[in-house]
Amino acid sequence: MTEIVTAAMIVIGDEILSGRTKDRNIGHLADMMTAIGIDLKEVRIVPDEEDEIVDAVNALRARHTYVFTTGGIGPTHDDITADAVAKAFGLPCEHDAKAMALLAESYAARGIEFNEARRRMARMPRGAAHIDNPVSTAPGFRIGNVHVMAGVPSIFQAMLDNVVPTLKTGAKLLSAAVRCPHGEGTIGGPLAAIQKAHPDTIIGSYPKYADGSFWTELVVRARTPEALESARAEVEAMVAALPAR
Amino acid sequence: MTEIVTAAMIVIGDEILSGRTKDRNIGHLADMMTAIGIDLKEVRIVPDEEDEIVDAVNALRARHTYVFTTGGIGPTHDDITADAVAKAFGLPCEHDAKAMALLAESYAARGIEFNEARRRMARMPRGAAHIDNPVSTAPGFRIGNVHVMAGVPSIFQAMLDNVVPTLKTGAKLLSAAVRCPHGEGTIGGPLAAIQKAHPDTIIGSYPKYADGSFWTELVVRARTPEALESARAEVEAMVAALPAR
Repeated sequence: MTEIVTAAMIVIGDEILSGRTKDRNIGHLADMMTAIGIDLKEVRIVPDEEDEIVDAVNALRARHTYVFTTGGIGPTHDDITADAVAKAFGLPCEHDAKAMALLAESYAARGIEFNEARRRMARMPRGAAHIDNPVSTAPGFRIGNVHVMAGVPSIFQAMLDNVVPTLKTGAKLLSAAVRCPHGEGTIGGPLAAIQKAHPDTIIGSYPKYADGSFWTELVVRARTPEALESARAEVEAMVAALPAR
Repeated sequence: MTEIVTAAMIVIGDEILSGRTKDRNIGHLADMMTAIGIDLKEVRIVPDEEDEIVDAVNALRARHTYVFTTGGIGPTHDDITADAVAKAFGLPCEHDAKAMALLAESYAARGIEFNEARRRMARMPRGAAHIDNPVSTAPGFRIGNVHVMAGVPSIFQAMLDNVVPTLKTGAKLLSAAVRCPHGEGTIGGPLAAIQKAHPDTIIGSYPKYADGSFWTELVVRARTPEALESARAEVEAMVAALPAR
């Protein structure tokens, strides 16, 4: 039996909660986790407030194999993620020597002053490991099972690409979709019977509404091809047996 | 002093956590809350698991003026939101007589069988009030301060339009944006000084990265026009004083 590996995500930022910025990182992380066989089990979006970040980090790191955060690691006063994560772990938050050297070199090469605000980006909990940032140098970091990454989508995605190869991955959840031209009300009964007969699968039903009528996407998930195919075939047969519409 | 009204959102559904469906409701609720002066303070995305939904509902309804949920109120076996919310309140989950009548009439008019799966959509905690669904009849509901709505975006939006006029709203958070052609590292220091001098405002700095360089959107938020304008003018002056690039 392959181990189940679970993850949670914390999206940090007032701008997401106010609607000013629309999150684009949750869907990307969800896709990546599914692709490598890690179950994303919970996402929390929290404001730029230290206590809220600390509480979310501590609640989720205790429950899941991995935690991923986005946002709040830039050079401005509202970037408090490094401090909050350090506090969650009871560690000092310090200017990391290696990050200071990286940033000093990068700014020197571009003739830009390495000022106090920019030095903030080198701060991380003592003992944290870097997550390389190929886009704009300032690293994310990992401490314990918590991976702290940028909120700007292109940088988040580049950092995540560097994190993924370091993760232990679980039994990949296989999935198969069956398109059903009927609304959920028609198939709710027989679908529940199929789910009951196949406890080793997770059968989801996702209502879609367009142009005045409903259709349904039925998704079977399982950890083995045999379990998947057995349930999928029954779902397909159920849909085929319904009157055409 | 106008009352501060806060809200939290719970997005319910395995399909969001797997990445198969990309959420479109968080951004809409965030925009609506900001527009009417309610502070959205937290969002949680949870799976179709009763304990997870119960825990999220109870944690958030105790902390916020309002809780809004999306997803899991359809007719299939994985639609367990009504049961979970009833459990969170310690109430029985029953077929609501008014909802049964509405649905029976709607299906009869269309010549569709009002089967057991469809009857599931009339279930809600005892004493819940309806949230009308002008799109597809099956109502959402409110129990205590928790508003339970559909996950399909067009239905969620229509239900929310019916809920908004019933909410007490707070002091509207005014905002003004200043476009800064420099990256955050340049303005982090002076911006922190402006924030410190204007404790009655919330100044956010949102890095944008495009075509190989950074720019920054600076957003000042305040509850009075005077506080907003005072801080906004200082931010604008700070940006104007920087060397052009």
